Amino acid sequence: MIILGIDTAIRKTGYGVIRMDTPGKMEILDCGVIQNKASLPHSECLRRLSGGIRQLLDGFHPEAASIESAFVSKNIKTAMILSLARGAVIAALAENHVPVYEYSPKSAKRAATGNGEASKEQVASIIASICSLDVSAIPNDSTDALALAVCHGSLALRPGCAGMLPNPV
Amino acid sequence: MIILGIDTAIRKTGYGVIRMDTPGKMEILDCGVIQNKASLPHSECLRRLSGGIRQLLDGFHPEAASIESAFVSKNIKTAMILSLARGAVIAALAENHVPVYEYSPKSAKRAATGNGEASKEQVASIIASICSLDVSAIPNDSTDALALAVCHGSLALRPGCAGMLPNPV
Repeated sequence: MIILGIDTAIRKTGYGVIRMDTPGKMEILDCGVIQNKASLPHSECLRRLSGGIRQLLDGFHPEAASIESAFVSKNIKTAMILSLARGAVIAALAENHVPVYEYSPKSAKRAATGNGEASKEQVASIIASICSLDVSAIPNDSTDALALAVCHGSLALRPGCAGMLPNPV
Repeated sequence: MIILGIDTAIRKTGYGVIRMDTPGKMEILDCGVIQNKASLPHSECLRRLSGGIRQLLDGFHPEAASIESAFVSKNIKTAMILSLARGAVIAALAENHVPVYEYSPKSAKRAATGNGEASKEQVASIIASICSLDVSAIPNDSTDALALAVCHGSLALRPGCAGMLPNPV
């Protein structure tokens, strides 16, 4: 099962593509960041975001995507800009018929490390060790995205857990 | 000059495509609504929205799009869902290199009718009369979108006003 995890933001969207056929065993096919300079207008950021997602879909044909659930920020402007980015990303996934699942950052970290409060560094080092990789191979900004992918994979593949999958977005 | 006005919402997005070569003279090329049933998940609404926008771009090749500026709703959840829809729409426009301009509903109504407080019915009847149409030819939910298109066209075409155009989104 190939899963695309996406940690969406207008300026810095982390992504991680994993292959997981048994829970606890996985391979990282790709991970990185779609970066948008602070000087770019929103429309250009959204164009680069949906184009980047489309490239990942063409390259890896994931069966599912896993994104962070919308958190309600205290700052409404920040929340609205994040939602713009989420809208572009979800539309690109839906156009390609990839079902999108949402998980809280805590669930994602718990699935990846056993601890919902784990730091980015802890998440990265545990994922690197499962994949027999040097931790330096995992860009810091793609850690949350990888944890999101692991979270969906673990739930979808663990026997008896399929009924606990959330509804797609 | 062909302009696409879009009144974005997750469930009911009004659109209006106009041709305006002189301010005050215009032709409606198309207007209508992209409707999403309340039962559809957000991903499907966004897919239908960006697909619908893409169809309009393929059909009419507008030079610019005009959308409602993001208003900060008291209800943060509503604002975030609206922003999802805006993200999908702006991404589809940006992918097709159509510059997107934002105007407040008040500016749009003022440009279309001379009165920023005009009702939907007044806007529809004035636009219908300019276009020598029966007002019944204008669906109620596309009125705001048409006013947005008129607003951008009037500003872009009026001599001496080009410098007053807002920056694209």
